[in-house]
Amino acid sequence: MKVLVLHGPNLNLLGMREPGMYGTETLDGINTALARLAKELGVEMECRQSNMEGELVTWVQQAAGVFQGLVINPAAYTHTSVALRDAVLAVGLPVVEVHLSNVHKREDFRQRSFLAPVAVGQISGFGIDSYLLGFRAVVSVLQQGPDR
Amino acid sequence: MKVLVLHGPNLNLLGMREPGMYGTETLDGINTALARLAKELGVEMECRQSNMEGELVTWVQQAAGVFQGLVINPAAYTHTSVALRDAVLAVGLPVVEVHLSNVHKREDFRQRSFLAPVAVGQISGFGIDSYLLGFRAVVSVLQQGPDR
Amino acid sequence: MKVLVLHGPNLNLLGMREPGMYGTETLDGINTALARLAKELGVEMECRQSNMEGELVTWVQQAAGVFQGLVINPAAYTHTSVALRDAVLAVGLPVVEVHLSNVHKREDFRQRSFLAPVAVGQISGFGIDSYLLGFRAVVSVLQQGPDR
Amino acid sequence: MKVLVLHGPNLNLLGMREPGMYGTETLDGINTALARLAKELGVEMECRQSNMEGELVTWVQQAAGVFQGLVINPAAYTHTSVALRDAVLAVGLPVVEVHLSNVHKREDFRQRSFLAPVAVGQISGFGIDSYLLGFRAVVSVLQQGPDR
Amino acid sequence: MKVLVLHGPNLNLLGMREPGMYGTETLDGINTALARLAKELGVEMECRQSNMEGELVTWVQQAAGVFQGLVINPAAYTHTSVALRDAVLAVGLPVVEVHLSNVHKREDFRQRSFLAPVAVGQISGFGIDSYLLGFRAVVSVLQQGPDR
Amino acid sequence: MKVLVLHGPNLNLLGMREPGMYGTETLDGINTALARLAKELGVEMECRQSNMEGELVTWVQQAAGVFQGLVINPAAYTHTSVALRDAVLAVGLPVVEVHLSNVHKREDFRQRSFLAPVAVGQISGFGIDSYLLGFRAVVSVLQQGPDR
Amino acid sequence: MKVLVLHGPNLNLLGMREPGMYGTETLDGINTALARLAKELGVEMECRQSNMEGELVTWVQQAAGVFQGLVINPAAYTHTSVALRDAVLAVGLPVVEVHLSNVHKREDFRQRSFLAPVAVGQISGFGIDSYLLGFRAVVSVLQQGPDR
Amino acid sequence: MKVLVLHGPNLNLLGMREPGMYGTETLDGINTALARLAKELGVEMECRQSNMEGELVTWVQQAAGVFQGLVINPAAYTHTSVALRDAVLAVGLPVVEVHLSNVHKREDFRQRSFLAPVAVGQISGFGIDSYLLGFRAVVSVLQQGPDR
Amino acid sequence: MKVLVLHGPNLNLLGMREPGMYGTETLDGINTALARLAKELGVEMECRQSNMEGELVTWVQQAAGVFQGLVINPAAYTHTSVALRDAVLAVGLPVVEVHLSNVHKREDFRQRSFLAPVAVGQISGFGIDSYLLGFRAVVSVLQQGPDR
Amino acid sequence: MKVLVLHGPNLNLLGMREPGMYGTETLDGINTALARLAKELGVEMECRQSNMEGELVTWVQQAAGVFQGLVINPAAYTHTSVALRDAVLAVGLPVVEVHLSNVHKREDFRQRSFLAPVAVGQISGFGIDSYLLGFRAVVSVLQQGPDR
Amino acid sequence: MKVLVLHGPNLNLLGMREPGMYGTETLDGINTALARLAKELGVEMECRQSNMEGELVTWVQQAAGVFQGLVINPAAYTHTSVALRDAVLAVGLPVVEVHLSNVHKREDFRQRSFLAPVAVGQISGFGIDSYLLGFRAVVSVLQQGPDR
Amino acid sequence: MKVLVLHGPNLNLLGMREPGMYGTETLDGINTALARLAKELGVEMECRQSNMEGELVTWVQQAAGVFQGLVINPAAYTHTSVALRDAVLAVGLPVVEVHLSNVHKREDFRQRSFLAPVAVGQISGFGIDSYLLGFRAVVSVLQQGPDR
Repeated sequence: MKVLVLHGPNLNLLGMREPGMYGTETLDGINTALARLAKELGVEMECRQSNMEGELVTWVQQAAGVFQGLVINPAAYTHTSVALRDAVLAVGLPVVEVHLSNVHKREDFRQRSFLAPVAVGQISGFGIDSYLLGFRAVVSVLQQGPDR
Repeated sequence: MKVLVLHGPNLNLLGMREPGMYGTETLDGINTALARLAKELGVEMECRQSNMEGELVTWVQQAAGVFQGLVINPAAYTHTSVALRDAVLAVGLPVVEVHLSNVHKREDFRQRSFLAPVAVGQISGFGIDSYLLGFRAVVSVLQQGPDR
Repeated sequence: MKVLVLHGPNLNLLGMREPGMYGTETLDGINTALARLAKELGVEMECRQSNMEGELVTWVQQAAGVFQGLVINPAAYTHTSVALRDAVLAVGLPVVEVHLSNVHKREDFRQRSFLAPVAVGQISGFGIDSYLLGFRAVVSVLQQGPDR
Repeated sequence: MKVLVLHGPNLNLLGMREPGMYGTETLDGINTALARLAKELGVEMECRQSNMEGELVTWVQQAAGVFQGLVINPAAYTHTSVALRDAVLAVGLPVVEVHLSNVHKREDFRQRSFLAPVAVGQISGFGIDSYLLGFRAVVSVLQQGPDR
Repeated sequence: MKVLVLHGPNLNLLGMREPGMYGTETLDGINTALARLAKELGVEMECRQSNMEGELVTWVQQAAGVFQGLVINPAAYTHTSVALRDAVLAVGLPVVEVHLSNVHKREDFRQRSFLAPVAVGQISGFGIDSYLLGFRAVVSVLQQGPDR
Repeated sequence: MKVLVLHGPNLNLLGMREPGMYGTETLDGINTALARLAKELGVEMECRQSNMEGELVTWVQQAAGVFQGLVINPAAYTHTSVALRDAVLAVGLPVVEVHLSNVHKREDFRQRSFLAPVAVGQISGFGIDSYLLGFRAVVSVLQQGPDR
Repeated sequence: MKVLVLHGPNLNLLGMREPGMYGTETLDGINTALARLAKELGVEMECRQSNMEGELVTWVQQAAGVFQGLVINPAAYTHTSVALRDAVLAVGLPVVEVHLSNVHKREDFRQRSFLAPVAVGQISGFGIDSYLLGFRAVVSVLQQGPDR
Repeated sequence: MKVLVLHGPNLNLLGMREPGMYGTETLDGINTALARLAKELGVEMECRQSNMEGELVTWVQQAAGVFQGLVINPAAYTHTSVALRDAVLAVGLPVVEVHLSNVHKREDFRQRSFLAPVAVGQISGFGIDSYLLGFRAVVSVLQQGPDR
Repeated sequence: MKVLVLHGPNLNLLGMREPGMYGTETLDGINTALARLAKELGVEMECRQSNMEGELVTWVQQAAGVFQGLVINPAAYTHTSVALRDAVLAVGLPVVEVHLSNVHKREDFRQRSFLAPVAVGQISGFGIDSYLLGFRAVVSVLQQGPDR
Repeated sequence: MKVLVLHGPNLNLLGMREPGMYGTETLDGINTALARLAKELGVEMECRQSNMEGELVTWVQQAAGVFQGLVINPAAYTHTSVALRDAVLAVGLPVVEVHLSNVHKREDFRQRSFLAPVAVGQISGFGIDSYLLGFRAVVSVLQQGPDR
Repeated sequence: MKVLVLHGPNLNLLGMREPGMYGTETLDGINTALARLAKELGVEMECRQSNMEGELVTWVQQAAGVFQGLVINPAAYTHTSVALRDAVLAVGLPVVEVHLSNVHKREDFRQRSFLAPVAVGQISGFGIDSYLLGFRAVVSVLQQGPDR
Repeated sequence: MKVLVLHGPNLNLLGMREPGMYGTETLDGINTALARLAKELGVEMECRQSNMEGELVTWVQQAAGVFQGLVINPAAYTHTSVALRDAVLAVGLPVVEVHLSNVHKREDFRQRSFLAPVAVGQISGFGIDSYLLGFRAVVSVLQQGPDR
């Protein structure tokens, strides 16, 4: 079982970026914590970050046949990318959407997620824990098999 | 550390109620799984269910001084209860909002949560796992203390 | 065959309450007329009234296994109660929604019914006749069986 | 006492037309059932169908002095015809609006009825029974006289 | 002359609850101040608080024949309860709506009051003074009699 | 110079129809008054009424080459007929839109005119005078010629 | 019989101002034409122009007891002045609203008139003729007396 | 294989009507070009035009059993006719919607098509070519059979 | 302690103006009652009325250093004046907004107050009592000092 | 004459991707069919696909001077890319927008095309035929020359 | 070359007024800085401030023939004055709109400028620099002449 | 002091692209003018252009530590890119948003800027001057230091 974790735009700046909103943890810190959890759960994992909508789309496409599930923090593209949504529909793999901050507390335009309706579910507001919980969630979904 | 888990209206019918939407797990099954996880994490827990908005409000109020955190599945009251939101604001305890189904896939009126903006975060779409992940989340929040 | 008739909030004041809008008939008068029609149609019937959203939800839940169909005048909860809608979805019994006044003539917020899309149908505007026609409707639905 | 029953556009195709939505009953079947009920209630009745908005308007106008009440299923014109509404206002006869399907379950544009606010009331969702209940309703209105 | 003062949900927590928003006065403090003012004005008074929408509805209904006017702080139910509005319409007694905080400064969903259009008037933003002014207002309304 | 006056649906009922809204003048009375004014202004005139949208469209089309200007009271079709608007655009003759009642005082759906933006101007609220003023207006437009 | 004609802001620039929209006629030209028509109809008349909302309000107020009717081109204040509307309501004199251009062809914000719903009627799109027709209209209203 | 081509209101004026928008081709020219293409593709064809919504509805109904597919330019009725939509649903034949002009460049109210969601597809903006492409489209659909 | 009372446009007509809406009290009557109350509370007071938005703005500005608080009935400018709001923000004095009528019962455009969110609070619906209660409110605010 | 065909994001997955929505044809299959048609029509053609909005923008820019027309299926970028629209405006070449599925049957956010108002026209709903018809359309546009 | 600088309502309070929003610079300070820049650029200049919408309208009107361009900070009237917009259209002089604060960061009602669409351009957010940049902008526009 | 100037999508086509909207100046011309102004002000500067949203995001990120301020013309991404907004928030450098055309005169979707609320300010409508003024603005901001 292999899970792909995708980080969207500006997440490479984590720790630097608005710590009051996103915390002081860096992206490396998150990836390390995810690797530790993956090992604990006996699951393979790979993490990638991009600022390019099209690159994230391509990575979702390429996941087919290599990964069985995805954890995606689409960041800004959550609210603007239909292409990412279509990619998830196209590959047909289970996706868990995660957010560091509680998007429900923020600007109106952050209330809409193009991805969430085609994801298995969404987790938001727990900082680094959003990723760890999201990783547990996708592993649980995969363990329950296609019939769940 | 003691956590209160509140189930909103109609969740007493779980298993019977629209299994295509909510799964075949009963509320007792969820409570048992939560008890097992609580024990594993070394945390006390209590579960209650009500169909009455006002009773849920009162239970949130009474949590002050007895519980340190709450996991709430407000069910239908997610979308209509300002009173529940105000109760959470009033007691000032960390709350995690959970949903069995992925609300982002459903009717327009289910897209608005009065509770989410005053909760720590929201988890939706993972069936019984939504509760288990939400329980982990609130415990993690409590372990990080008020300064996180 | 047994039908449950539920009266929502403030319907206990019928006769007193805005006679220009709701007529001079009392709730007892309506219940008596329904009992007479039920007898005529050879159907058992029970009538209940509550001002509490949660109590109405519980009564709908408890109808399962005891009643085969419901006639509900949700009154004010028509426009605000998702919980009642979810209860009707949960029990899976045929429900007919009735209103004394013609809601289409009234305030904007009365134009939306959370219940109607999950009911068999809706009857509004005929005073006490709304109940009698609704009762006939639910009996006819039950006589046609699940395949209609 | 004489009642005019008007069927709007496409209702001449009943039975053929989307049976999943409208049932397998034909318009003749409905008219026959209405005739039987009219006879039972001792009321005269006439049924007409048209695909033309203007013809329906004219028939409503001509009802004055000949009929005492109308049952109208405006079908598609429910949602688009102000002319039909104005005709009903102009003749001042009591009108009952009926729909075979439960319009509250359907597309957004079917949620608005131009006719309902000027009708006595509306009945929707009961198939052929919508007509029969609507016929009973208008007869009851007429029996109660102008002062009801 | 007897006036009923109703406090809506979460007002039992006053003093504890968001003091930056609602002040440090407790509900007992408000009731004591009201009692003092009532005595000064030579009016009888009774205060009740409930977290239950349905209970508040019932209290409004029961005021008929016992009280001549009401002061209501519907709190969260201001924005969501059609049932409370209908109860006020049903009993036909003069009602003054009061709010501790200035609702016009707050969230969008707090801008709508279902009660205000059926109340005599609304007073908001003056903390405990909102109640005292509201009490004076209802007494003045009652002194002017039905013809004012 | 020849002017066509078109009366839309239900205007054949004038005098009978909602006299509080439209006055007691009949359509014949209006046509007679228009004929008198036409004669006074030395202009030929013809009046037609139809309840059919398509017939009104056809009459507008046929005006080309026979009439130099039109006065139209589209009545209900004001708010629903794009076809009438397109017909006016197609023939390219100056059109004055008139209304007996002041549409700005009425229902929301009467606030939109599909015709007005392609008419020379609109006159509403003056009863029979709306027609007489509209007739003067179109004659004045024609007298000023295409360059005005 | 004495009629007050009020010209709103920027109408003093007529002739200079956007001739493609408002024509080449000056305000003096309009006033002269109105004086000629007034004389022809045997009515006294006075014309005033102001760029100040408050001054127009005061003039409407002062019309009471001196004038029997008003013709107002509120220009820009049509769309923004509630004060002018309230002044018209306060004095209770018949008002005819006129516009040189066809407002229905213009920006969205020009589609709303605060004045029109409290005026007798509205005339727009005929250039200087709008004033002349509006003058005729108010005179006709006054001749028909309060019972029309 | 036989295809019915329906032209909506005002299309009889083509060539005369707003040539900047619709081109200089007449309806006869279009029908001739369609006949040539039909012959080339070995398909029978018939063309009809009406200004009446109800007549178009009736023609769609009568197509059942005679034609296998339709090309419809609903013109103004695109945006206002639910009846036409229902007729297409009722007969169940494949329909291609065509427009001479590019509706996406035009007024807001032309952005909504009631027909398009129940058609196979829509072609707009190519003048006479919209018809020819639409004809090719419906023939291709028919050649692929019901399973495509 | 000195309080400035500002009356907005058309309030100089009180008594004359729509007595069904605003009562029969004149502005002088209100000012006299306010003077009596001011004296009773030992507070100095001054009343001014203007129909000009800009004059009201200037008076609010000039209040700084002379008055400690304001009672404002902005009347029509409540709903349209951002300038008045900005003036109140600029001077930083406590302002109480009052309305004679219950604005919540009236037109949609009267539901928005630009002033209320920057005022201490709002009182509406009590006729002359709105002023008296508002005066008491601002005095109480001033007595509690800047720390309340 | 040379035409550029651009395929937007996720179209490289055709055949794999939601066959119920997009059919089983692959992108290669579409390109081959287009090549065959181009040859038949005596036109040169080139096909490109990208998941990157910016790359599609650049390709549209580079078309100037090399290609005379474009067929674009912007896929997800239809609904979100202003940049693509601006690129089309900048190069000034005729563009035909095509869609495999009938976008009018799909989610609300797919109803808006940023490209369509600056394209010659739009074709949607015919699967691979949408491309072939779109190709014919752009060739016909080019054959008619700039004056069409 | 002579430029008129207009300051809207409440700008006379600059320095006193919400320094966190508008800075500590006074209006005199701004006028002095503008005079220095005007001298540097060899341009004449005059500054005026008013709280009256109508006075600002009149000043814009009077600029014709005396000034060649205007810099306007309409302050609150930006969002409410159609009259100011019409005045700018009427005089036909180039206008640059400036704002001290960044209006895009503020309340929703400040997002709409009635003036901006008829101005050359808009500059907001730079405090006193907004004026200096705006002054440079209008001078540059004037130097480029009417053909730019 | 070093300033980064970023040009968004399609700005590489300047001069070619819609000269009526954007002028005849090329991007090189703008960069040269900016270089001249930078030299005059004694500031270093670098200009970059990209059609890729993600590349612009990355450039903003990389500005941290190298540049002290940015001038950005986001072009089409103004209206669609949340990612660019988040990048600006993340790096925390002062940004001035500039536009060649007056966006307030254009399509509705160009009225919203995701960037403006997180920029220091916005300048639009002055062609190449927008850049030069924006450059002056950011330099002035930097000279005033973090406390301004």
